[in-house]
Amino acid sequence: MKSELYKQLTILSPYYKENYLPSVSIDCVVFGFHNACLKVLLIKLKESETWGLPGGYLKKKEDLNVGANRILQERTGATNIYLNQFKTFGDKNRSEAHFKDFPDDLWHKQRYISIAHYALIDFETVTPVMDQFSDACEWKDIDMLPELMMDHQHIFDEALIQLRRDLNYKPVGLNLLPEKFTMPELQKLYEIILNKKLNRGNFYRKMTRYNILDKLNETRKGGAHKAPDLYKFDIENYNAALKTGLQESW
Amino acid sequence: MKSELYKQLTILSPYYKENYLPSVSIDCVVFGFHNACLKVLLIKLKESETWGLPGGYLKKKEDLNVGANRILQERTGATNIYLNQFKTFGDKNRSEAHFKDFPDDLWHKQRYISIAHYALIDFETVTPVMDQFSDACEWKDIDMLPELMMDHQHIFDEALIQLRRDLNYKPVGLNLLPEKFTMPELQKLYEIILNKKLNRGNFYRKMTRYNILDKLNETRKGGAHKAPDLYKFDIENYNAALKTGLQESW
Repeated sequence: MKSELYKQLTILSPYYKENYLPSVSIDCVVFGFHNACLKVLLIKLKESETWGLPGGYLKKKEDLNVGANRILQERTGATNIYLNQFKTFGDKNRSEAHFKDFPDDLWHKQRYISIAHYALIDFETVTPVMDQFSDACEWKDIDMLPELMMDHQHIFDEALIQLRRDLNYKPVGLNLLPEKFTMPELQKLYEIILNKKLNRGNFYRKMTRYNILDKLNETRKGGAHKAPDLYKFDIENYNAALKTGLQESW
Repeated sequence: MKSELYKQLTILSPYYKENYLPSVSIDCVVFGFHNACLKVLLIKLKESETWGLPGGYLKKKEDLNVGANRILQERTGATNIYLNQFKTFGDKNRSEAHFKDFPDDLWHKQRYISIAHYALIDFETVTPVMDQFSDACEWKDIDMLPELMMDHQHIFDEALIQLRRDLNYKPVGLNLLPEKFTMPELQKLYEIILNKKLNRGNFYRKMTRYNILDKLNETRKGGAHKAPDLYKFDIENYNAALKTGLQESW
């Protein structure tokens, strides 16, 4: 297979071998929320019909968290995104089939363990940028994913489980909702992430107990119903809860 | 430094290079509970004053979870322990000082990212066994840890945070408590892991809601107070909750 991509990878192999840590790769599951819709950022490798998660390699003299953010920026143009490392994938045959037509000494063909990260952002704030290996970088609806390369569907599934699990101890919503929002709008965000309806009273009580919301002396005017109260996040308490966890019932 | 350990490591380096994946190591934080006491399993490298977590390297043709269990068994003699992979540690200088007196081509001196796992077991069921590099393998009280090598104190701290966090969505207690136990005994287990007192009524309500306990028609006789009810775990519901998470309030 003497394609353009093959030529590029062959030329780059010695450079990668000199500067990057062998056996280690990083993949990013970037969830995007906007207007009650949850998407994920995917890239399409050149000369390939399948899509994949944005990913790359760790430099020999680079901290892991620095490398993860660099890779996300290089492959998507997205900066200042807080990445949550959630799991490392290391099945022995996870990428075996992917470069099977390429020569064995190609950098990209070695066995990698993948350190996976996820993030949740407002997708209107990011303009994806393609790198030299990709011919597409797009937001895809999480309910209608295309076929994904290697074990990327599995990595995506685990990221979604982790995102939902994290709602049990981390606050969510800052930078995803407008500065002032109603309780039903916040509840809708949780419902979309969890993909289920929540009880309104329980949600209100739980949220109030977390002590991360400031109730404003304003209401959202204009609806047919009684104007709902507006809230904003108490940034200090919100950030404290990000670090130490929400006040759990244990 | 021409010590015995150095000679051993030098002789073994070519074997490791041929059979193990470069840059990747695995560390295990094994928490042991018994009689209201929480400990962690540590090993002491030969010719070293500091202790460390049991760890090792991943074989080139070995799945990550298989490698983690093999390493734990080789270094501690412990088998059939369910390991929870919780975080990968990849600071660029995490192990740099540790082998600084050794030659650069030593297998052990390369930069490793460490894929960390934790487990929680009854420490009476495990008899630690030393391997060729260690001269001690012991259970240490988590409140009185000795000085740990490299970033192992940080890895331990993160494991404890994760263990506590996991109590929010995973059941705990099977194989740690006797088959029949009282609610105060179960509460005590949670209190020791969380290192705080819990409210008795809240604990009872939360536990009952999880639907993983069978209340028996028996009481614990012999105390000065009213004999407390005995419970056992509903194994089917317990295992289902391990897989899919406890019924959360969201």
